[in-house]
Amino acid sequence: MSNVVYTVYRDTFIHLTRLPEGPSRSKPQLVRNCGALWVSTEDGRIKGLDWSAGDEESFGALMARNGWIDINADTQTPGAGGMKVQVVKADEARNEFFFPGFIDTHIHAPQYPNAGLFGSTTLLDWLEAYTFPVESAFGKTNTTPTNDPKDTPPSALRIYDQVIARTLSHGTTCASYFATVHVPATNALAALCHKRGQRAFIGRVCMDNPSFCPEYYRDATAEESLTSTKSVIEYIHTLDPKGHLIKPIITPRFVPTCTRPALESLGSLAASYEPPLHIQTHISENLNEVALVEKLFPGVSYAGVYDKYSLLTKRTILAHAVHLSSSERALIRARDAKISHCPASNSALGSGIAPVRTFLDEGLTVGLGTDVSGGYSPSILEAARQACLASRLLGHTASFSDQKNEECEAGREKLSVEESLYLATRGGAAVIDMADELGGFEEGMIFDAQLIQLGSVAAVEGLLEGTGNVLVDGPVGNVDLFGTETWEEKIQKWVWSGDDRNVKAVWVAGRLVHRRA
Amino acid sequence: MSNVVYTVYRDTFIHLTRLPEGPSRSKPQLVRNCGALWVSTEDGRIKGLDWSAGDEESFGALMARNGWIDINADTQTPGAGGMKVQVVKADEARNEFFFPGFIDTHIHAPQYPNAGLFGSTTLLDWLEAYTFPVESAFGKTNTTPTNDPKDTPPSALRIYDQVIARTLSHGTTCASYFATVHVPATNALAALCHKRGQRAFIGRVCMDNPSFCPEYYRDATAEESLTSTKSVIEYIHTLDPKGHLIKPIITPRFVPTCTRPALESLGSLAASYEPPLHIQTHISENLNEVALVEKLFPGVSYAGVYDKYSLLTKRTILAHAVHLSSSERALIRARDAKISHCPASNSALGSGIAPVRTFLDEGLTVGLGTDVSGGYSPSILEAARQACLASRLLGHTASFSDQKNEECEAGREKLSVEESLYLATRGGAAVIDMADELGGFEEGMIFDAQLIQLGSVAAVEGLLEGTGNVLVDGPVGNVDLFGTETWEEKIQKWVWSGDDRNVKAVWVAGRLVHRRA
Repeated sequence: MSNVVYTVYRDTFIHLTRLPEGPSRSKPQLVRNCGALWVSTEDGRIKGLDWSAGDEESFGALMARNGWIDINADTQTPGAGGMKVQVVKADEARNEFFFPGFIDTHIHAPQYPNAGLFGSTTLLDWLEAYTFPVESAFGKTNTTPTNDPKDTPPSALRIYDQVIARTLSHGTTCASYFATVHVPATNALAALCHKRGQRAFIGRVCMDNPSFCPEYYRDATAEESLTSTKSVIEYIHTLDPKGHLIKPIITPRFVPTCTRPALESLGSLAASYEPPLHIQTHISENLNEVALVEKLFPGVSYAGVYDKYSLLTKRTILAHAVHLSSSERALIRARDAKISHCPASNSALGSGIAPVRTFLDEGLTVGLGTDVSGGYSPSILEAARQACLASRLLGHTASFSDQKNEECEAGREKLSVEESLYLATRGGAAVIDMADELGGFEEGMIFDAQLIQLGSVAAVEGLLEGTGNVLVDGPVGNVDLFGTETWEEKIQKWVWSGDDRNVKAVWVAGRLVHRRA
Repeated sequence: MSNVVYTVYRDTFIHLTRLPEGPSRSKPQLVRNCGALWVSTEDGRIKGLDWSAGDEESFGALMARNGWIDINADTQTPGAGGMKVQVVKADEARNEFFFPGFIDTHIHAPQYPNAGLFGSTTLLDWLEAYTFPVESAFGKTNTTPTNDPKDTPPSALRIYDQVIARTLSHGTTCASYFATVHVPATNALAALCHKRGQRAFIGRVCMDNPSFCPEYYRDATAEESLTSTKSVIEYIHTLDPKGHLIKPIITPRFVPTCTRPALESLGSLAASYEPPLHIQTHISENLNEVALVEKLFPGVSYAGVYDKYSLLTKRTILAHAVHLSSSERALIRARDAKISHCPASNSALGSGIAPVRTFLDEGLTVGLGTDVSGGYSPSILEAARQACLASRLLGHTASFSDQKNEECEAGREKLSVEESLYLATRGGAAVIDMADELGGFEEGMIFDAQLIQLGSVAAVEGLLEGTGNVLVDGPVGNVDLFGTETWEEKIQKWVWSGDDRNVKAVWVAGRLVHRRA
């Protein structure tokens, strides 16, 4: 296959229109194109597209015009000497279509064994009861520092590998991972993503404040937060020098777990690179947490603390943002920092409902995060569903009633399927500062995509007399089509009933990284 | 197999403890037993159980003691002349266990093609835009009356068959269905449930009020509501004379769609049977709906209207109950009417969050409903998840803040996994007035059950060097076990990550009605 120049993807492509940057009340639209696009084997970018090549004849003409030879075609033009291409076709009869890969802007890889385990806790007791114990098992602290991924406990490797396999199987082509404080395991996560071919930001978690971190799981000093972070950055820059797939991300856990010297040195560290490194942390997830930060930094807002330490940048991902004040939103907007909305987690831990439509109306950039294991699911499709559901309950909350803008039409806060899919793709791309490269099917963009298969409508007869006592074989997974749906309604059914069974294949930069078993 | 006397189910059984009736602050517990129980082939009831027969030796002793011969055993005692039994075993190595079948106390079978299609509508516009059009296609109104299921449009048969197949595949052994106004199609739904072996209550929908029902889809008169309902009752009583599997249920859609004469005659009709027939309807789902009912019946509460027309009985299922007043709750409690909590629907349509813990503390009987297609999923497991999630947001709602009882500990409103599974099984059984017969594994109860398979922990090695680029084959569906979980935690993972892939087989009254493909 090394002599294949392009992979030509053909038939149905669906993505979201790109919205203008800045404050906007416009809403994204789903767009469906039938035709072909071709992706360079060398760099995984879309080199061209032809939305008129939707039928066999015009596709054949496209192939001939370019002198392309399909390496898998049964018959070849005798003596043809054109460029070899591989053709991948979405089967319209099975309701297959290409869709941009999902971007998970906030996920804690080591917490995956706890997915679904949270009882009735809220953030601060959840951290103590569930999170710190599981994360602490990813290595040893207070030992001779090592950078070697092989110094990672086998159980930790297994968890990381499973997280990557699972997120890929749900169509996540890019994830911004929180790892743990351990350098070897964090490097192992980077190596495993690189090996499996998932695009990833890898963050070594910094937490050095003895007042709010347990003795058994924390950085001994602010200096350790800094030097261990540098070790991981160095490892990743060696693993993937140009950052094609894997990039480091500076990761102070959140304000209470970090001392001021740690916050300060991490802000400086990010700024010391050209371009500056990405940063990720948490903000305003839970009311008790917000009160704690107020107590720690009287007179400074939560967002203001990050800003004070140069951690609020255009490459910063702020997870949650459930309880921001309007002045904090304005500050975040001024710095062009980004928000990761994690609705499954916010509902599961009872944190509250982030006012996403308000963020978007004000021009903030928002993507979706699974927040495993505050979130119980590694699926961004599930996050999209929960974003829709939570937004439909937002109007019933006390805080929303207080803040409601009288000018807004009733129900504007409800996120549509289109909007939640926008957050899952274009929005996520903007959150990781790759809006020009990911999230849609445009010439020059990187081909991070999934092939969705909804299945077909099955014909059945004689139900009252018949003996067939099994599900008809048309549907794939739980998506039931009856032949009466518009294509937009099929997308709605995918969002509300779909799961990993509908993800037939996944590509990152044109490399096939998952194929449904 | 006709000479098989018992089916002996063996190994792991998990169910919920039964709570006392009436106001109670006690919480249900999950109980796990290892052993065997045996179900009569004749009537599908549990004839005995032995929780000490958990290992091969004691199980063998149980078989020998009873003189049972396993019809599928490789070797038989020569000349043995005991009773023939079939043995069905849950495989512990694959984390299999028997669990009571789910009971869906509120589902609209004809709306299934609309699952996932609701846009940003709320109840009243949703009915007009989505619901009435799809329901109206299940037959013709204003034609010569017929009772024959064969007069049902083929597309309607197909939808009903698929709904039954789907709900069975999700472990629903019993459902209380709303059909449409059409007698033939409603009878066909009954016939299809009977054929597939799903326990069901079948309700012919009554809606005769021209002010709130569309011209193209309503009963012409109150008399038609009554006579068509009687036709369906008669059909079902002929189909299943003793009501072993299928029972009729009187179904006035909800207050606004029914005239006073219709409400009155339906209440009388239910009371005219011995025992009185079951009744199902909607109550207080949406604030605009509540306001409308207030306008129609000034000075009478919504629950009071049903009571006025003898529709509030111990065999009445009230769906939703999101916005009940405390005096309505007291009235419902006094009449011992039951509540179907439909959290997925209530979130999807933005109806609000029903205060389930308050209901339970006050002694109301509550089960779960999918409310397809206000609810987007036919899965009661999904309903259980959404019950947990919604309850975790309840504390943020304006109405809850207003009503909060200062005596309650913080967070008491949050439903646990145990509580939501209780609602899905024991609670549902109580809602359909079968608490002594369904919902648990007890001697004398009917064996409506599902075999859950969570899968095994997979051993993997050499991840950093290896080439294996596929998901390990241990898990079933999305439930990932790492070998560190307690059995209670495995149940939590099932609830939060499980789906129909984990439902290996389903029995109703001891009859195998679904086996995973």
